[in-house]
Formats: sequence, C-alpha cells, structure tokens
Amino acid sequence: MTPPRGMRDLLPAEKEARESVLSAIRATYQARGFQEIETPALEELARLTSGQGGDNEKLVFKVQKRGEDFERALEAGEELADLGLRFDLTVPLTRYFASNNAKLPRVLKAIQIGPVWRAERPQKGRYRQFLQCDIDIIGDSTELAELELISASLAALDAIGLSGATIRINDRRLLTSTMAELGLQDHLDKALIAIDKLDKIGVDGVVAELTELVGQQASHAARGWLEAAPSAAMPEILAWTAQLGLLAQRLRFDPTLVRGMGYYTGAIFEIEHPEVAYSIGGGGRYDEMVGRWAGTDTPAVGISLGIERILDLIPASSATDNSLVLLVRDDASGALRSQAELIAQGWRVRLERQAKNTKAQLAELAAAGFSHFAFFQEGSQLDIKPLS
Amino acid sequence: MTPPRGMRDLLPAEKEARESVLSAIRATYQARGFQEIETPALEELARLTSGQGGDNEKLVFKVQKRGEDFERALEAGEELADLGLRFDLTVPLTRYFASNNAKLPRVLKAIQIGPVWRAERPQKGRYRQFLQCDIDIIGDSTELAELELISASLAALDAIGLSGATIRINDRRLLTSTMAELGLQDHLDKALIAIDKLDKIGVDGVVAELTELVGQQASHAARGWLEAAPSAAMPEILAWTAQLGLLAQRLRFDPTLVRGMGYYTGAIFEIEHPEVAYSIGGGGRYDEMVGRWAGTDTPAVGISLGIERILDLIPASSATDNSLVLLVRDDASGALRSQAELIAQGWRVRLERQAKNTKAQLAELAAAGFSHFAFFQEGSQLDIKPLS
Repeated sequence: MTPPRGMRDLLPAEKEARESVLSAIRATYQARGFQEIETPALEELARLTSGQGGDNEKLVFKVQKRGEDFERALEAGEELADLGLRFDLTVPLTRYFASNNAKLPRVLKAIQIGPVWRAERPQKGRYRQFLQCDIDIIGDSTELAELELISASLAALDAIGLSGATIRINDRRLLTSTMAELGLQDHLDKALIAIDKLDKIGVDGVVAELTELVGQQASHAARGWLEAAPSAAMPEILAWTAQLGLLAQRLRFDPTLVRGMGYYTGAIFEIEHPEVAYSIGGGGRYDEMVGRWAGTDTPAVGISLGIERILDLIPASSATDNSLVLLVRDDASGALRSQAELIAQGWRVRLERQAKNTKAQLAELAAAGFSHFAFFQEGSQLDIKPLS
Repeated sequence: MTPPRGMRDLLPAEKEARESVLSAIRATYQARGFQEIETPALEELARLTSGQGGDNEKLVFKVQKRGEDFERALEAGEELADLGLRFDLTVPLTRYFASNNAKLPRVLKAIQIGPVWRAERPQKGRYRQFLQCDIDIIGDSTELAELELISASLAALDAIGLSGATIRINDRRLLTSTMAELGLQDHLDKALIAIDKLDKIGVDGVVAELTELVGQQASHAARGWLEAAPSAAMPEILAWTAQLGLLAQRLRFDPTLVRGMGYYTGAIFEIEHPEVAYSIGGGGRYDEMVGRWAGTDTPAVGISLGIERILDLIPASSATDNSLVLLVRDDASGALRSQAELIAQGWRVRLERQAKNTKAQLAELAAAGFSHFAFFQEGSQLDIKPLS
C-alpha cells in the first residue's frame, strides 16, 4: 500500500513547505522578466535517447505503444515503446523552442517548474520522480545571459534564506584545452569521467584511472594540475564574471568541474551550500542543442535548482495563527454562512462535525496546527478561543 | 518538431493565465481549511486497472518494466508493464489515504492539482495530458462533506468570474431504485450507459437502446420517466441540499444524471456553465473505494474541476503596467545593480541587449506586452518611458 518504488507522497505540511519555497523562487525570477512555460511530461522516446542526456538516457521510463501499434511491434520484434517520461527539463525546452519559435520572443527567458523521472536505484534523498526548477535564456550568445542566470539564481536562494549558497564555475572549452595540454586529448571522454569523480575518489583515485588510460608519465602532469586546482585563479575565459560586482565573491573557479551532461558547450555551474556535501543545482551553456531539432544553432544557457535537496536545507515553517476550526452540531446552513463571513475577515476556517469526545477532538486539532476554535450555534454569538 | 500527439506546450501567456486561475481556486479552498497534497504521476498498473475507473482504465499509458524484469517478462510472454500514468486524481488519492492514514487528520480535506493522462483519440479541446483540480473529504459520512464541497466549488468558480456556474445533482442510490421500478434492474449497467447518452442521442435514442434490452413495453415506462425528468422536484434523499441556503438555487436535480465512473455510491454532481455545452467539473461520493486498498471502508466524496475547459471560459488578462525593459549596451555590471534597485521599487525588469535596430526591438517588446523601457548607461540617471 505504498507509492511506486522510489516515488513519494507529500503530506499536507510537506506540500505547503514546497509550494511556499516555489512561490518565492518563482516571484524572484518573474521580477527579472523570466516567464513561466510548460511542456508535457512525455516526449518522443527517440528524442530522449538521441545522445544529449549522458547517462540519464539509460534511466528513461518508457511508455508502451498502444492498441494495434503495440501488437504490431510485438509481433515484428520491434521497439515496443514510443514515448518516454522526461529525465530533465532541458531536452524538452529545446524541443519547445524549436516547436514554438515563431510565437516566442526573440530572446526567451523561461522558467520551468516540474517533475522529472529517472529509473535510478532508489537511495536516501534520491527519488525516481523529483522536482526541478529551471531558468534558461535562449537566443542570447553574450555573457549577459550567464550574468542574469547567476544573479537571478543567487537572488532566489537568498529569498528562501539560503544566502550561504555559492557557485563553482568552469568552462567546457577550458577543460578541453587543458586535456590537450595534459596529453589526454585522445581519451577526452574517459578522462573527463575520471575527473568528474574527484570529489568521491580524490586525486590519487583520479590519477590511477588516468594512468591506466595514458601511462604514468602523462598522468604525472595531471597530478600537478589536480593538486593546483583548489588555488587556481579565475581564467581569462571567465573574466566576464567580474561584472557581477559583489556577487562575484560567491563564485569559485574550479578547473576540475566537469558536469556529466553531454550537451554543454561553454560555461558550466554547480551550486553548493556549506551545510551539505552534494550540489543543490547546476547548469551551463548548451549552444548546439536547439540546433539538433531546429536545424540552425541557437545559443542557450540554463541553471536548474534541485527542489528536494533545497527543501532539506530549509527549516519547517510554523503554524499560521489565523486558522480556525468551526465545530458544527446538526444543521450546517448557518455554519456555511458563518464560514463565509469569517473568511472575508481573513480567517482560514475548517468546518468539523463536533465529536462526542470534544476534548480529544480539540487536542487533535491543536496538534494539527490549528490556532483557534469556536462552537457554532444558530442564533448565538460566535465565541472564538485559542486552541492552546 | 511538435509535442507528442494530443499533448501540448503552454506559451508564456497561456501558462500565466492558467497559474492565475489556479491561485485563485487554491486560495478559496485553503481559506476553507482544505490542505494541498501530492501523489506521484505513476501508480502500480494493477491498481489503475482494478475495475474502479470505468472506461478510463482502457486509456492508461503503460510504463514498461526495466532492465532484467523487462527481458524476463518478454521471454515469458508476461505483462511487460508494471506502472501506469494516473488517469484521474481519485484513485491515487484513495491509495494515498490508505498509505498515509496514520499521519493524516481523522477527516482529510485534500486539494490536489495535477496532470492526468488518458490515451484518448485527440479532439479539439480534449488532450491526452490535462490538468485536474480536485477537492475531496475523506472520513466524513455526513452530508456536511457534500455541503462543503458544493459551497467551496461554487465559491472558487465565483472567484475566477464564473458565477454563472450551476450544478446538476443526482444520487446513485436513487438511480438504482428507479431502474428497479422501471424493470431494468437486471440490465443495470447497460441501462445506465444508455441513459448517460441522453444529452447526445435524446429521449428517442435512449428509449431505442432500452427497447433492445427489455422490449417495448418496459421501455415505454422509461420514456415517461425520461420525459418528466426536466421538471422533477428535489427528492427526499437530496433534501440536505436545502442547508445550502441561497446557494441551493444554483443546484438542479437531474434524475437522469449518471456519470461514468464505477466507484460512485451516493450523491453525484456535474458542474455546468451556460456558455458551454459540456460540463466543467463533477464528482460524487465514493464510500467503498478507500476500503479496496485499506480493508475497511472509509466514507469519501470529491469534486473535480477541469482546468482546460474552465480556462476556455475566461477572457485573457491584459498586460501588467509595471513591466520594464532595461536596454543594456556593453558592460552589464551597472545594469544588474540597477535591475535589483528597480525590482525593490516594484518593477518587473527584463534586461535586454540593445539591438542595432532599436526601433524594431522596441516595437517587438511593446507587442510582447511590456509597458515601459529605459536605456541603461553607467553614471546617467535612468529615463523610464512608456512603450506605447
């Protein structure tokens, strides 16, 4: 009697905390001229498995063909699925931009808030359906786009009380040229996969993997680079970050930052918070993905926040002090009228049939977070009392 | 380059209209003590096809098993899917209540707002992914639950400007006893399916179908009942509706109202609006469904609003008058600071790189609904002008 494996129900208090965080983030983005859009949860399976999504492509929940199409595919031994649940909001966004281009502003500044699905092995704090909150700017090739995304994301995190959040930054082009300097250019993908594990396996672990790829001599140079990484200064290719003014202090250049997705082409980001070891968001520039669907390349950059991980960092809010329970005995007509009047005065009013054991009922309502109660009796003045 | 068949993207203005309607409905329900909850989009396939959902069970999008489970099922010729996308919010809610019972209030007053999926033949105005907005009361067997749902739904529709909405009401128990009186008790399901088509095929059409079932003589009695239906008075079993006071005038008893779902056990509702021929919402009492999962029956009643159909009735809102475009030339650092200051003053501020053809750019921004613009220049006072 549980939700499907790795998925979860939200209790009223959990849902309220989530919606309150989302409202604050949404308002911050909207104040900066971002506009919310929405795409369906399903996309063509072929689009979700076209090589853009890195390892996530292996984690797609596939939706079966229907009716005769299914029977035919089964008989012919062909692919039985034609649709898939999206594993991120970026692949659908690029498809959306290509689909709706003519009806969108030349530069689209999009907010997307929605669930994504990945058939990962369930772990603590990692779900098979989880919520992402993305902002993307499509159609601006200049660093103004990166600057806005960084500034808006930090403002959103500030708005929900996470002003300790910082951003690690790197550039894919820099990674590629460094790999070439280190003699790893013929093993680029594998070398990046090894470097991506630095947080988990440390410098020795990464060097061991690189040694297997290119031998001891070449990996020696990589060790020097890896050890110097924590103190590296902001490179020329990221000089634009200085335009962030004071906010630039919340950026840290990390030459070893990789990020897994195949589609990044320029700056990449990962958002961190001192209270947790994992990232709470990330993103980057992906100038070639829209072109996969639309034919012509369109510059694009985005930042995604992981809402579940952010909620873990935010203390639960306390009960509201304007929530009233109106206890009803028999006829409800007067109580419904009274409820409407109290709502007009600013109360939240829950009607409840008065139980035989009224004392236990009141104790339960107090525990549920209601602040006040009153007995409704036709013709009598309401006597509103605190539920202590 | 489109979304999957029968599904749709929401453009910024469409999404804004939808969210604004949802906020108003949500606030109306929350003011009455309803609490928002959420369940995953996927449920166990067996639960979605257990005979509760009527015809909708045939329309489930099925999700394939993964990895070895899939290979094994394929080899053994077994069911290849283990999960399905929900076709309504009621079946998941009853599973939710059974799963989380211990952590929920004794009487749960739930709001659910979320997409559902049905693999129907796409038609104008009918989508394969669409949004439902439900309120349900679980744990109250008295008519207080029905009264609250009706009163809250009408208040929500009023809040979004649909005060012309009315509710057709009937009771499944009354339908059953009427069918017995008409000699149709041995063909109950088929008779109800025929009566459910009254709006489409008229009295003659329904009588023709009933004649096939039970012969001419019996169907003659049914004709009399069908013809008298529009002027039927509120019956004893629905006498509780008088407690709605003035709101009772927005209820109309319709003895021929069936509603398709298999799970209803008592009062049933369908919400209508004079401007459209189809219903914009509906619901009813389903006292036996929670018991299917939890073992013990738990009284429950709910009303669902169809958000797409409601949005069709609401005129598009006009542009806001506090939206400013700040045109940036080179360095963005000052513009980012200025943006933050203007937001603090209450503006929505979109940064935009100044185009070579500034005149065309301004015309485009005006068409997109922005109300004001200003050129940003470091060290100069901002000159905010209307974008006419």
